[in-house]
Amino acid sequence: MPTYNAPVKSVQFLLNDVFNIARYANLPGFAEASPDIVAAILEEAAKFSQEVLAPLNRVGDTEGCIRHDDGRVTTPTGFREAYRQFREGGWIGISAPAEYGGQGLPATIGAVANEFFISANMAFAMYSGLVQGAVAALLAHGSDAQKRHWLPKMISGEWAGTMNLTEPHCGTDLGLLRTKAVPQTDGSYRITGTKIFISGGEQDLTENIVHLVLARIEGAPAGTKGISLFVVPKIRVNPDGSLGERNGLSCGSIEHKMGIHGNATCVMNYDGATGWLVGEANRGLNAMFTMMNEARLAVGLQGLALSEIAYQNAAAYARERLQGRALSAPRTGDRPADPIIVHPDVRRILMTIRAFNEAARALVLWAAISGDVSHRADDPRARQEAEDRMGLLTPVIKGVLTDIGFANAVQAQQVFGGHGYIAEHGMEQFVRDARIAMIYEGANGVQALDLVGRKLGKDGGRAVMAFFAEVEGFIKEHAGEEAFKPYLGPLAASLGHLRDATLWFMQNAVAKPDHAGAGSTDYMHLFGLVALGYMWARIVEAATKKLKEGGADTDAMKTRLTTARFFVERMLPETAVHLARIRAGADTMMELPAEAF
Amino acid sequence: MPTYNAPVKSVQFLLNDVFNIARYANLPGFAEASPDIVAAILEEAAKFSQEVLAPLNRVGDTEGCIRHDDGRVTTPTGFREAYRQFREGGWIGISAPAEYGGQGLPATIGAVANEFFISANMAFAMYSGLVQGAVAALLAHGSDAQKRHWLPKMISGEWAGTMNLTEPHCGTDLGLLRTKAVPQTDGSYRITGTKIFISGGEQDLTENIVHLVLARIEGAPAGTKGISLFVVPKIRVNPDGSLGERNGLSCGSIEHKMGIHGNATCVMNYDGATGWLVGEANRGLNAMFTMMNEARLAVGLQGLALSEIAYQNAAAYARERLQGRALSAPRTGDRPADPIIVHPDVRRILMTIRAFNEAARALVLWAAISGDVSHRADDPRARQEAEDRMGLLTPVIKGVLTDIGFANAVQAQQVFGGHGYIAEHGMEQFVRDARIAMIYEGANGVQALDLVGRKLGKDGGRAVMAFFAEVEGFIKEHAGEEAFKPYLGPLAASLGHLRDATLWFMQNAVAKPDHAGAGSTDYMHLFGLVALGYMWARIVEAATKKLKEGGADTDAMKTRLTTARFFVERMLPETAVHLARIRAGADTMMELPAEAF
Repeated sequence: MPTYNAPVKSVQFLLNDVFNIARYANLPGFAEASPDIVAAILEEAAKFSQEVLAPLNRVGDTEGCIRHDDGRVTTPTGFREAYRQFREGGWIGISAPAEYGGQGLPATIGAVANEFFISANMAFAMYSGLVQGAVAALLAHGSDAQKRHWLPKMISGEWAGTMNLTEPHCGTDLGLLRTKAVPQTDGSYRITGTKIFISGGEQDLTENIVHLVLARIEGAPAGTKGISLFVVPKIRVNPDGSLGERNGLSCGSIEHKMGIHGNATCVMNYDGATGWLVGEANRGLNAMFTMMNEARLAVGLQGLALSEIAYQNAAAYARERLQGRALSAPRTGDRPADPIIVHPDVRRILMTIRAFNEAARALVLWAAISGDVSHRADDPRARQEAEDRMGLLTPVIKGVLTDIGFANAVQAQQVFGGHGYIAEHGMEQFVRDARIAMIYEGANGVQALDLVGRKLGKDGGRAVMAFFAEVEGFIKEHAGEEAFKPYLGPLAASLGHLRDATLWFMQNAVAKPDHAGAGSTDYMHLFGLVALGYMWARIVEAATKKLKEGGADTDAMKTRLTTARFFVERMLPETAVHLARIRAGADTMMELPAEAF
Repeated sequence: MPTYNAPVKSVQFLLNDVFNIARYANLPGFAEASPDIVAAILEEAAKFSQEVLAPLNRVGDTEGCIRHDDGRVTTPTGFREAYRQFREGGWIGISAPAEYGGQGLPATIGAVANEFFISANMAFAMYSGLVQGAVAALLAHGSDAQKRHWLPKMISGEWAGTMNLTEPHCGTDLGLLRTKAVPQTDGSYRITGTKIFISGGEQDLTENIVHLVLARIEGAPAGTKGISLFVVPKIRVNPDGSLGERNGLSCGSIEHKMGIHGNATCVMNYDGATGWLVGEANRGLNAMFTMMNEARLAVGLQGLALSEIAYQNAAAYARERLQGRALSAPRTGDRPADPIIVHPDVRRILMTIRAFNEAARALVLWAAISGDVSHRADDPRARQEAEDRMGLLTPVIKGVLTDIGFANAVQAQQVFGGHGYIAEHGMEQFVRDARIAMIYEGANGVQALDLVGRKLGKDGGRAVMAFFAEVEGFIKEHAGEEAFKPYLGPLAASLGHLRDATLWFMQNAVAKPDHAGAGSTDYMHLFGLVALGYMWARIVEAATKKLKEGGADTDAMKTRLTTARFFVERMLPETAVHLARIRAGADTMMELPAEAF
């Protein structure tokens, strides 16, 4: 049975020492996020994750969700009670506006808590994560009346939220969607169609479910320009806020899938269900992107969260399992064998994972802080810079953190040998659960295209240039310092590869867009490595400062310096291969006719 | 539901055009493997795989095996009847000696057929694969009486075979094993102990099961030098060959595991079971290695086989699924969207997998032919060279083909988007099934250590030097030829990286063995890339020749040249990263104390 210890100290180090969030105290909500309040929140989130959610993770996997003949769905044993506690803890509305009952804290603090919840029980955390996404979409695009009508009970957790995009014949290409919306005289719409892969589309955790549904208003243009967003509740809500009658929608079936068994993945049938337009007609895709971007960061967080818990359990196993002798002198002479952590190849795995985890956490926090600044700062330039960064980092975080997070779960499982393949140890569940994060909310290939096709060229490349300048500025600032010596050379080389790759696209992909598509996934990973390398550089900066100051954390800071060195020695060299692949272009790849495959 | 088309033409091209097996016609069994007989065998194996085994693959996954209270195990619906047909087809003894009832064909032909069986139904193919391994061990180490007693019914498939190594506290480190063997006055032994992870330890497919069990004879030395091999049947066999009474062993439970649900993974309890020593006392590990080496090649084949079927289904889906438009001009204007095979990032995945599959198949066949030559050639030098090559390639095939095979199954699943995560499409089963191949028969980290720690230095490096000389000889031979231009430069560069890495170990790992351990996995993959690159060069040679000759296969040959170019452009560059990692050495990796993890 896996165990979990929430990385509270790592989060505090990143928030306080690396990103110095105290400097944002002038922004709404940040003053309330003082170090001691954050510490209390983190302790509470850690406790809830470790004591309530983690023990339910295997239960959720083993039992799964059950759909009854009448369309009701039962979640696994214990989920209902845990969700009640979760709701009462105020976790769902942690960063929602106070005027609708939220706690108004920075979204950054919400992201931190979510990492803990996901590590402990990803399938469970998806239920609440989707509410937060739906709240964000309604906040951004709903009318004032809609906000007042829907948000308070969603933020309190009494009602859940979902996002309904995919249909059987279309996922990535939403322009093909067929779900229909017919206007009614009272201003509402009747929604008819089938949606698939709806996480939490039906469940027994909340008294109502607020579905956000993409549909095409009768007569609207074909393609993506004719898609609108609707709010469609499971149970209609009376003007006084009380629940009315059942709406015309139901869960037709739930999917049997590779993992996240504790979360009900539903086929949703809308059969003339009553819905209300959110935002402008035919601008639904735009509105849904607010929810998608929230969700993409949350999915990136899933990659990190599973890498973290898989790492913790692999490390514990490697310290305990006695097998074989060290290649160097035996270190534990009185035992029949040494713990396998003496073996370099086992350490290679553990170091590889930990060299990702803290930098990935830093990257998520950097993006989350940028998100908060983009929404809360007064200075328009600060908002714009933050929004640029957030937009640039979103596909990188979603695509890279989930690809590497999955690979890390697989490697952590490998540390267990044959025992890793057996269900009772829980390691194989992490692999199965982590796998979905590479797929949903836009498969990682789509993230790579978003980065290369949209984000790079947006506003004349403003966001990417700012990113390059920031990393370069950091390298220049610390160029002469002894403490930074092992790190800055490799980081500069990899940044050079990223610049070269960007230039190659500029020179080649305009004439032949396939060149961009052919290099997009490599570019995303090249970008991710540079971003993670920059995070390590920032961590080294903060750790070096702490070491100079002395204090209790000396060992933890030295461990960071070693881990950062491992990253630059073993992971950063991969950027050269990504560049070589990008430069290979699309010609060979596109040469074969489809029937040759 | 996945489909499967056995790659018969690829196999024939490799056997006839690349490896020209006709030149071995003077070796026992090879004369019978004429092109037309091989063609007939392949067609038969293909048909059986496609029509009988493939339809049972999902059934096996869904139903799994059931252990009853009395210790009996029931395999999934349809397995019994399929196994009966499989046995009657003579597949189990395809390359076993005719004197014990086998068909006496080259092991190479057996390997080819096994690839098809595994692709179609890996869990099923494991039952027969282990019989073949047990037969090999008894052939190599059993007495004549034992061979006559056990082999005919194993080769006919009436009895199965298993290998029993792992115990709860030891897997990789067999020196720790505790199962006891007490000598009896009649020359037999009483075996007592618990073995875990025994594939096919109990089943309802055969009337008897011949377990090969590692145990320690009372009073034998501790460690690996006190381990002996025993043959321990489920049901004792009377001198006349009829079945006698039940032996003192039983299946205590079966594991719930990530995949290969159709194969019963058993905890086996030996409770004073009667067994007979195979080979010399205290030399059991040596004898078991015969079976292990067979098994390691078979496991490498599993990596390829799942990569192949996952590829086929992903390619079919990519040709059919309409989603989005080509970045270049739309190619199918009258459809609402283009098939996703127009997208470079989808092609990147498909090309990556196919650029592995045929070269991996070539590598397996090269090793299998070497195995046949090492057993069947008259010339001692030819035997030795072949044995060297086989020994060198075994860990590479096991480790690299299963790592990449799994990664390919994951990528093929990705082509399906959300549908890949749903059980009914079958793609997620390939991922779960493929995962075990990286673990069992020596986890891949152990393969890497075998390569670096044993195989490299053996006989003064004779095997690896011969490999280098062969690849170099090929490069020199074709250096001036236009047709080889795109391939030889990258191959030479990667071979240079491999030589540099080998030299680095020679200069650094003697003084500090941890340097070898720290670089072992990277070395194994570096070796694998060079070996696959060499296979592509050989394929290019044969395809170019066929193209010059003209004929019906022009398109298939051109496809090979394109695929080979993709391999050298996109995969071979990775060798530079492996070299960089190897040269980084062990220092950073070994720096942290165990408690820092």
